[in-house]
Amino acid sequence: EELNLHLTGDFHAVTAANNLLAALIDNHIYQGNQLSINIKRVSWRRVMDVNDRALRNIVVGLGTTLDGIPREGGFDITAASELMAVLGLATSLQDLRERLGRIVIGYDRHKNPVTAEQIKGAGAMTVLLKDALNPNLMQTLEGTPALVHTGPFANIAHGNSSIVADQVGIRSGSYLITEAGFGSDVGAEKFFNLKCAASGMSPDVAVIVATVRALKLNSGKFQVKAGKPLPEEMVAESPEDVMAGAANLRRHIANIRQHGVIPVIAVNSFPTDHASEHAAIGAIAEEEGAAWAIAEPFSRGAEGMVALAEAVREAAEHGSNFAPLYTPDMTLTEKIETIATKVYGADGVEYDIKAKRQLADYEAHGYGNLPICMAKTQYSFSHNPALLGAPTGWTLPVREVQLVAGAGFVLPLTGSINRMPGLGLHPAAHSIDIDADGNVVGLS
Amino acid sequence: EELNLHLTGDFHAVTAANNLLAALIDNHIYQGNQLSINIKRVSWRRVMDVNDRALRNIVVGLGTTLDGIPREGGFDITAASELMAVLGLATSLQDLRERLGRIVIGYDRHKNPVTAEQIKGAGAMTVLLKDALNPNLMQTLEGTPALVHTGPFANIAHGNSSIVADQVGIRSGSYLITEAGFGSDVGAEKFFNLKCAASGMSPDVAVIVATVRALKLNSGKFQVKAGKPLPEEMVAESPEDVMAGAANLRRHIANIRQHGVIPVIAVNSFPTDHASEHAAIGAIAEEEGAAWAIAEPFSRGAEGMVALAEAVREAAEHGSNFAPLYTPDMTLTEKIETIATKVYGADGVEYDIKAKRQLADYEAHGYGNLPICMAKTQYSFSHNPALLGAPTGWTLPVREVQLVAGAGFVLPLTGSINRMPGLGLHPAAHSIDIDADGNVVGLS
Amino acid sequence: EELNLHLTGDFHAVTAANNLLAALIDNHIYQGNQLSINIKRVSWRRVMDVNDRALRNIVVGLGTTLDGIPREGGFDITAASELMAVLGLATSLQDLRERLGRIVIGYDRHKNPVTAEQIKGAGAMTVLLKDALNPNLMQTLEGTPALVHTGPFANIAHGNSSIVADQVGIRSGSYLITEAGFGSDVGAEKFFNLKCAASGMSPDVAVIVATVRALKLNSGKFQVKAGKPLPEEMVAESPEDVMAGAANLRRHIANIRQHGVIPVIAVNSFPTDHASEHAAIGAIAEEEGAAWAIAEPFSRGAEGMVALAEAVREAAEHGSNFAPLYTPDMTLTEKIETIATKVYGADGVEYDIKAKRQLADYEAHGYGNLPICMAKTQYSFSHNPALLGAPTGWTLPVREVQLVAGAGFVLPLTGSINRMPGLGLHPAAHSIDIDADGNVVGLS
Amino acid sequence: EELNLHLTGDFHAVTAANNLLAALIDNHIYQGNQLSINIKRVSWRRVMDVNDRALRNIVVGLGTTLDGIPREGGFDITAASELMAVLGLATSLQDLRERLGRIVIGYDRHKNPVTAEQIKGAGAMTVLLKDALNPNLMQTLEGTPALVHTGPFANIAHGNSSIVADQVGIRSGSYLITEAGFGSDVGAEKFFNLKCAASGMSPDVAVIVATVRALKLNSGKFQVKAGKPLPEEMVAESPEDVMAGAANLRRHIANIRQHGVIPVIAVNSFPTDHASEHAAIGAIAEEEGAAWAIAEPFSRGAEGMVALAEAVREAAEHGSNFAPLYTPDMTLTEKIETIATKVYGADGVEYDIKAKRQLADYEAHGYGNLPICMAKTQYSFSHNPALLGAPTGWTLPVREVQLVAGAGFVLPLTGSINRMPGLGLHPAAHSIDIDADGNVVGLS
Repeated sequence: EELNLHLTGDFHAVTAANNLLAALIDNHIYQGNQLSINIKRVSWRRVMDVNDRALRNIVVGLGTTLDGIPREGGFDITAASELMAVLGLATSLQDLRERLGRIVIGYDRHKNPVTAEQIKGAGAMTVLLKDALNPNLMQTLEGTPALVHTGPFANIAHGNSSIVADQVGIRSGSYLITEAGFGSDVGAEKFFNLKCAASGMSPDVAVIVATVRALKLNSGKFQVKAGKPLPEEMVAESPEDVMAGAANLRRHIANIRQHGVIPVIAVNSFPTDHASEHAAIGAIAEEEGAAWAIAEPFSRGAEGMVALAEAVREAAEHGSNFAPLYTPDMTLTEKIETIATKVYGADGVEYDIKAKRQLADYEAHGYGNLPICMAKTQYSFSHNPALLGAPTGWTLPVREVQLVAGAGFVLPLTGSINRMPGLGLHPAAHSIDIDADGNVVGLS
Repeated sequence: EELNLHLTGDFHAVTAANNLLAALIDNHIYQGNQLSINIKRVSWRRVMDVNDRALRNIVVGLGTTLDGIPREGGFDITAASELMAVLGLATSLQDLRERLGRIVIGYDRHKNPVTAEQIKGAGAMTVLLKDALNPNLMQTLEGTPALVHTGPFANIAHGNSSIVADQVGIRSGSYLITEAGFGSDVGAEKFFNLKCAASGMSPDVAVIVATVRALKLNSGKFQVKAGKPLPEEMVAESPEDVMAGAANLRRHIANIRQHGVIPVIAVNSFPTDHASEHAAIGAIAEEEGAAWAIAEPFSRGAEGMVALAEAVREAAEHGSNFAPLYTPDMTLTEKIETIATKVYGADGVEYDIKAKRQLADYEAHGYGNLPICMAKTQYSFSHNPALLGAPTGWTLPVREVQLVAGAGFVLPLTGSINRMPGLGLHPAAHSIDIDADGNVVGLS
Repeated sequence: EELNLHLTGDFHAVTAANNLLAALIDNHIYQGNQLSINIKRVSWRRVMDVNDRALRNIVVGLGTTLDGIPREGGFDITAASELMAVLGLATSLQDLRERLGRIVIGYDRHKNPVTAEQIKGAGAMTVLLKDALNPNLMQTLEGTPALVHTGPFANIAHGNSSIVADQVGIRSGSYLITEAGFGSDVGAEKFFNLKCAASGMSPDVAVIVATVRALKLNSGKFQVKAGKPLPEEMVAESPEDVMAGAANLRRHIANIRQHGVIPVIAVNSFPTDHASEHAAIGAIAEEEGAAWAIAEPFSRGAEGMVALAEAVREAAEHGSNFAPLYTPDMTLTEKIETIATKVYGADGVEYDIKAKRQLADYEAHGYGNLPICMAKTQYSFSHNPALLGAPTGWTLPVREVQLVAGAGFVLPLTGSINRMPGLGLHPAAHSIDIDADGNVVGLS
Repeated sequence: EELNLHLTGDFHAVTAANNLLAALIDNHIYQGNQLSINIKRVSWRRVMDVNDRALRNIVVGLGTTLDGIPREGGFDITAASELMAVLGLATSLQDLRERLGRIVIGYDRHKNPVTAEQIKGAGAMTVLLKDALNPNLMQTLEGTPALVHTGPFANIAHGNSSIVADQVGIRSGSYLITEAGFGSDVGAEKFFNLKCAASGMSPDVAVIVATVRALKLNSGKFQVKAGKPLPEEMVAESPEDVMAGAANLRRHIANIRQHGVIPVIAVNSFPTDHASEHAAIGAIAEEEGAAWAIAEPFSRGAEGMVALAEAVREAAEHGSNFAPLYTPDMTLTEKIETIATKVYGADGVEYDIKAKRQLADYEAHGYGNLPICMAKTQYSFSHNPALLGAPTGWTLPVREVQLVAGAGFVLPLTGSINRMPGLGLHPAAHSIDIDADGNVVGLS
């Protein structure tokens, strides 16, 4: 199964549309700045599909009178473009057009937001993105069709498959399975409260993927480092260690249920797992009154997923009672606090001065009815990756809040976020080449 | 006939490969700069396929210790990338790989050139450009196959169709017609002395496209402004005005002949032309002993080209006696002066201090055997667009000389060159949109 | 009485010495960077004695290979230079030389501090500052001698008259009166714990200057705006309003006493005051067991200060029992918390991640024994100017901690600090001129 | 004899006034830019009295909305400030005020010049420069009074002592001796045609200082390198080598005479000279009909200058017939060509496109009546330091022309000019220090 999003041209289209808007903004300023754009408050950044840290913070417009107006700017990686989230949340071409028009590119000298519509860029962007709005139909190794579409990161955007792909999928079969990246506090929360609000669709069942490894990790007994092998004692058979992380799974189950949706636990089986450990997960699910099944897609393919599929089918027959946790008329602050306390288990929220000022500003400019898309680590229910299990007794800090008006949400930042990766000391590109026969080498 | 190079992905591939190398350069500097690259002398620029004047001159690498090393840089438009010229001159995938490795990205602190090979970027660039090396097969409205491949500008690069496309074409039919942009002093000179040297191919016939309009213009009697209609007196029937511009056509004919190639004059017919004017062109051709024919592709399609085709076939039967004007072992200065005096009709060449230093530097570093690709206006045989006809008694100024080692030539600049256009007061993008039915509007 | 520090050349000398060090740093980097200075972590900024906001954040070193290495930098106003604090705390020319050598200008690539000594700039700076180390002898309108020397701001530095001036003064008369800017929580705290530690001197008496206006303001009943006249109701006779602000004065008295020093309250008389209000201040002082006197320098000159002088003389006879609140061997964190809780009345201190990292770094590099110079607003005992009276139940936030190793202290920042003012819409300079007779106009 | 211009504060005053204007310009732009200043065409640069190459090319105004508007700028060394030339050419305080008001700081968006008067900075600058306008009275070791005032460089400004100092001097004794830096083609030409026009004064006699060394050098027989000892064969007795450089001295004599002034040749004696060589210089003078005397100030003090003084006194009795070479009503181009052909001995002048455009622009804006202050090397009558003797058969290139409207001249650049020096690998500052007794060491 080879999957290359670049082949479909979506990333190129997003790059082109994003940077066309940027060029139109700087051209507007250069041509007399009729909209009185404050050059210090242009928030629309350029994008590039290359890991290039040197482009994070730049000064543009240097040179002669013919070379534009100087200002500070920067590049993000293409996947971090607001357009990626817009594509994922648009419900039709016309809706895409409207969302693009609503993009806020910065502020004018009177402190009012300036939109892509005012810059006269939304029409041309729509044309560039027209084809990228169509989902890409792929198939699995066994021939099952799969729609692969848009890649908004779950830590800076909503992290779900596109609405358009779901619309196509729901009309093409009996069941639609759609992915919401990371746990119930990240992808699922955004699926329920943000994506469902945009799509008007509602889920019947939510599958929670549980692993022996993750539960052991959430026991807090082990130190795991990225890029290093797991500690030996974590691989040894120990249903007790699985049980020690149970609080984490229990909160995920509760999070699904408080949205009125039936959870089914998929125990994602790994070769290093032991049957007693799978049983421990099953025991937790049963204590919580949730159905569960062992899933073995890696070792057994579709055959290994039948048990899970049946559990889901059965659950789906009960019908859902879906309701979002907050309504559009609540204030931004109320929405943030709802998520923090009900989903994350925080005692409350504390805002930096800057964040408070931004929230007030967005409310004042009519963006108070937008949903929240929280930028938070996926490694903890909290903002702190070190707080494992189901932490309590902590406060969620919000340092900054960004307005993502085109995608249609408000993005509180609970930690530092890097939207443009850098290359390492030995980048993969150093090893990629062609051999004497013209074959590509070094890709794997 | 719809032709969109973007569809084929070539521009995206060039953009990606160009910017990957840029990222690798800045990453190399950031990771300790083992090659001692002089950050003030990195000549490799980033590219983007958007008209964005604000990116011409930028400072990158601002921010914290994690955000790279600050230096001045800039973006060109993708078509101006050296990679476009490399694609056009590569004769095979292996040759592409080698040319990419030879790209000089700048200089180190000891004033030695640094190559893409040293940066370990050439392999990955080759992989990104692999598919773009294949020519794109299109067809005309009447179904004639046409290979459309690479778009190097003739004023900053060699301005010819790709060697690979020619190789495919020559194997696919009896005659290969390939284009060399602009006149005998620009595209043809580069075709003969640069592209043929790279491809090892040699031409039988050269078609010179002549128009009534161009000859009248070269009479020096009329003022024509871009974007304005032609002056009325220029449209009126006047074979005398055509004859008044004859010197220009005569020099084009002589330029072809001094390369040992047989010229055929195609009179490209326009609706506003008069028969007496076509006859005037024919008279000039006959005086010079060259075959000629009227070409009417616009009004009569393939039918309108038969006469020209027959003239070309007949000429081709004579066989060519092709020889380039200079040989690799001549010094760069000798090559430049050969082109200036023999092709352009200059009395000589004068070099700025900077240009002299650069030529000496390139010779010293072993690039003295490269051919010349002159950056010159297409509006005059000279560097000065105002010198019409076949000017004499002037000197060619060379202000700066760039090394384009991957493409494999040395580029003397005889005027100012802009590699990144800007948008106008009313950019086309302002009018492009979709209508209520989702159709694209405003593109034409 | 005309006082122009510029006349004495101190500001010019500080500017010259500060910028010489900056030039030596950039020259060191340019000439090969033997010390491996991290250009992203050069903390030494240039200074200028002009209000110029455009110089706050700049990029230097642009241009050709001959024009230096690019990096981000900036200018502060001369008075904010570390050198001003160094001059104020140096006890001799040799001590000045040593302090200048200890200045930390930034960090190298191995994260070690780099000093002015390593840059070989401390000697030449000493020579430039040699004369500026000598105090300037001025006189009052009545002929009383006054030493005016160095102007370190109390919000970003220690805000006290120079040690050298005190040394000269103490040898020249029976009593030395020296000023510590702002209240017991700002100038006095730094006088006791920082300046006395550097000078080895100890005070006998501390005069607390109290005003009717300040106590009324600290009642929290009135809104006062800079540049606007006082509210009428605040000017009306009201000893009750004075008493309502008593907590503020009481804490100042306690702050003096906890350093073992005898406080004397000077009631600084204003024309708008009422006798009943002066009496209220006196009553507060008496309740606290402190001597007090009315001071009328503005209306009655030296004569109006006799009562205060006698109260001070009497207090001085009791002898002091001075002791600093903390000792050098305490950790930086312990010192900060001592000041916050004992002097400011905070419940505790909370540190930003950055501040914690910096404190650990300074301890690790051997700067843990330095005293603390807190950067805090003078408008409240807390960091929040709105908290009047003697606030309790709050936490002091420390966002960042700067190392001022030459002056010899560590500077925790408890709010945002601007070290380079900007000009207003109508700067004074617009009105300054000479008239037809060559006289200066517009200065007052 | 110790001479430190810094002591007099002139350089500090120039620095302060120069940078105040810069701050007012950026503040004007920041506060709404009522004058529509084109931020790409602000030519007023900041200055600093430190050799700091990193400040040559900078970007200012980075940061938040409060931190100004970004643009490219830079620093020159204080001596290169236009203000230094203004001080040197002002004839009174009122004249100073007017010249400061006429300073052109850049251009607005309509391509009109913007003056310091419009920026409302000239008044305050006058006040800052008021004291610096007064000459500084120094004395020689033998007690002869000397006025030392202003230091405009002769290669970028007019290189003469100030008019105010001359006015004071002429009233204080029988003879005024004033210096014009470098030869008859540099300082003297500017003295005659620029300074005399501003002052209204006229000279009686011009002393040409000739040396054996300089004439030998102008023979073209020797290679002299800065910082290296003279070649041995140049030091050996050789009146022939002196005579071989005679053409150079003859042209200096002719240059003086064509301004109607009587030349007197001072043979500046060096210990390594031989009597026969002095005699050779005398012979050249006599051939040209000019008086001459040997001057020995270094070895014999005032006594050694008596012979020269008597030659000057005698010459002065003849009375001068002074007339400038050009008049204000001539075009800028005519004035430049007059100097080039009559004084430098050039065949003519060639202008870069940029220079032509600038000259036309200055004429159009009413600056055509200004005198010329040529920026040219002092090492040759030509622009090329390698052309020794009295070169003929060459053309003067003018690359750029600057408007120095406050000083009151137009400055054609005939080579590259560096207005901000850099420090070397071992700057003097590295060695300067105080010793254990507080004495300054390392200054000499």
